[in-house]
Amino acid sequence: MASPLFDRLALIGIGLIGSSLAQAVRVRGLAQEISISTRSASTLQRAEELRLGDHYSLDAAVAVEGADLVILCVPVGANEAVAKWIAPALQPGAILTDVGSTKGSVIAQVAPHVPDGVHLIPGHPIAGTEQSGPDAGFPTLFEDRWCILTPPEGADPAMVQKLSAFWRACGSDVDVMEAGHHDLVLAIVSHLPHLIAYNIVGTADDLETVTKSQVIKYSASGFRDFTRLAASDPTMWRDVCLNNKDAILEMLARFSEDLSALQRAIRWGDGDMLFDLFTRTRSIRRSIIEAGQETDAPDFGRTKPS
Amino acid sequence: MASPLFDRLALIGIGLIGSSLAQAVRVRGLAQEISISTRSASTLQRAEELRLGDHYSLDAAVAVEGADLVILCVPVGANEAVAKWIAPALQPGAILTDVGSTKGSVIAQVAPHVPDGVHLIPGHPIAGTEQSGPDAGFPTLFEDRWCILTPPEGADPAMVQKLSAFWRACGSDVDVMEAGHHDLVLAIVSHLPHLIAYNIVGTADDLETVTKSQVIKYSASGFRDFTRLAASDPTMWRDVCLNNKDAILEMLARFSEDLSALQRAIRWGDGDMLFDLFTRTRSIRRSIIEAGQETDAPDFGRTKPS
Ligand SMILES: NC(=O)c1ccc[n+]([C@@H]2O[C@H](COP(=O)([O-])OP(=O)(O)OC[C@H]3O[C@@H](n4cnc5c(N)ncnc54)[C@H](OP(=O)(O)O)[C@@H]3O)[C@@H](O)[C@H]2O)c1
Ligand SMILES: NC(=O)c1ccc[n+]([C@@H]2O[C@H](COP(=O)([O-])OP(=O)(O)OC[C@H]3O[C@@H](n4cnc5c(N)ncnc54)[C@H](OP(=O)(O)O)[C@@H]3O)[C@@H](O)[C@H]2O)c1
Repeated sequence: MASPLFDRLALIGIGLIGSSLAQAVRVRGLAQEISISTRSASTLQRAEELRLGDHYSLDAAVAVEGADLVILCVPVGANEAVAKWIAPALQPGAILTDVGSTKGSVIAQVAPHVPDGVHLIPGHPIAGTEQSGPDAGFPTLFEDRWCILTPPEGADPAMVQKLSAFWRACGSDVDVMEAGHHDLVLAIVSHLPHLIAYNIVGTADDLETVTKSQVIKYSASGFRDFTRLAASDPTMWRDVCLNNKDAILEMLARFSEDLSALQRAIRWGDGDMLFDLFTRTRSIRRSIIEAGQETDAPDFGRTKPS
Repeated sequence: MASPLFDRLALIGIGLIGSSLAQAVRVRGLAQEISISTRSASTLQRAEELRLGDHYSLDAAVAVEGADLVILCVPVGANEAVAKWIAPALQPGAILTDVGSTKGSVIAQVAPHVPDGVHLIPGHPIAGTEQSGPDAGFPTLFEDRWCILTPPEGADPAMVQKLSAFWRACGSDVDVMEAGHHDLVLAIVSHLPHLIAYNIVGTADDLETVTKSQVIKYSASGFRDFTRLAASDPTMWRDVCLNNKDAILEMLARFSEDLSALQRAIRWGDGDMLFDLFTRTRSIRRSIIEAGQETDAPDFGRTKPS
């Protein structure tokens, strides 16, 4: 086991991502001590039962005392309030980072509260499941996944290196990019897919001509795939929408434009246009499988429920 | 093993569904003999190498000779031509069915060619994967899945019973409904999800601001889920669009309307509307899992590619 990269890691928020980080850090010995804070007493107690850390506090400012790495693992809409709370207690020289799904907003909302001498380097692990809470976490979540860091202008390159080394030690590959570009990329690869999934499930839920029990019974023909993303945490996704508005609206507009063209092709029976689109879209899955980001088993290798 | 329900089964088309049926019938001893026909010599040869049947012919009319059950397993756009071809060779008393994803069109296009004394009972197994061709088939595909039969008015109830018994013996539950209602139900549970998946993959493919390699790298954050449906067979899906136009356009219109409302909520920062939608959509996945139509493992129980 490598010698610990950090003396004391403070995790603020201990849901799916915080819990997975705590476990990855523990298994790989990346920090001497782990200090955990969360909003509710019940989640904190659960974290303690799961032995996710060494110190537990409902006071986030207490949790960050003496920490040389602080990771905010809360919904992005909560980052600013947490930042204000912990700011006075942050140790000079510490790295302050987060795991939020939007990055421009973190810089806008958190940076103003960060004291001099503390290194703000926002981050986003591209890894997750549709579940949430500390019990959903597991130590291998970040393995063979990407983590994107979006250091603001003027960030200390040595600190960016150090945080990159931390994520690599968790099993991830690291990319560094500008926050605005991150938000555009994630709008298409993550935010739009989730919104579309939520939307189609909502549409199905509202139909009068087809009953809910029919939707459920026959869902294996395609619909059930969307219900996974649409089962994701509502608070997290509300916050994502509110904090990456421009990029999401841009991607939604393009999607709708393309959908209108598809609708037109169906109305006019333009089989060639349909065939072309349906052919062009096949190759990207092959590339994703070759890039090691997806299984090549049919049907996701999904096991039949017993 | 039960005594065979049928003397001779003829499968016209031997892709994913035809091959799975051949294997299910063989394993369960549901027919004395299996006779196979397909369009191309190469697919027919592959079917023979896989030992899917007892008789093989490129002439569909030859294949149906003496068959008391004939199942069309070709894209729905090919059903009419195949029906015309085999009509003169169909044996009186035989059941003629299909597995196509649209049902109104089958009745409209096939029924006029069916000779008196042959029982047309269209069907649709709600089971499949994104793969195609004879090698993709497997004998358990239909287990614990639904099969919908849409007998036209005046169909012989005894024959509907007999075909139902066949599908039950393949491991499926059977529902009987009117073809038009089938097409409406499938438009929302299957056709719309596939179209949306094709569309979003197309949108991502067209972006200039985000590179394809970024879409691929970060696809585990949501996008990759859609690439599965969007990797489905283009011919099959073109034919579905052309043959269930009205129901698909109706569902697309509702989806777009709902998407506009969602877009508006994002633009105006209506967090409550977003939170409500994202909460309401969670419960349906739970119901699908409880109905035995989905795994409850996180992330579909998807194994990480090695
Ligand atoms: N889920 C994913 O797939 C995924 C992937 C990558 C990044 N992310 C990002 O990771 C972050 C955490 O997501 P998660 O999936 O771990 O969420 P989660 O499982 O729901 O856990 C959220 C944690 O944040 C705390 N929290 C919630 N609201 C809060 C508030 N208003 N003030 C203070 N603390 C609050 C919760 O505390 P209590 O339980 O004590 O109330 C809990 O500890 C989010 O920013 C999300 O965008 C998620
Ligand atoms: N895939 C699914 O998930 C699924 C689920 C339920 C129902 N279905 C329905 O099942 C049917 C078959 O789908 P599949 O997935 O088995 O397709 P597939 O794997 O692509 O196989 C199609 C079969 O039909 C033959 N065929 C294709 N075009 C033809 C034409 N113009 N004339 C005559 N034969 C033709 C092919 O012959 P050659 O290879 O010799 O050219 C092949 O034997 C479709 O109607 C589809 O709607 C599919």
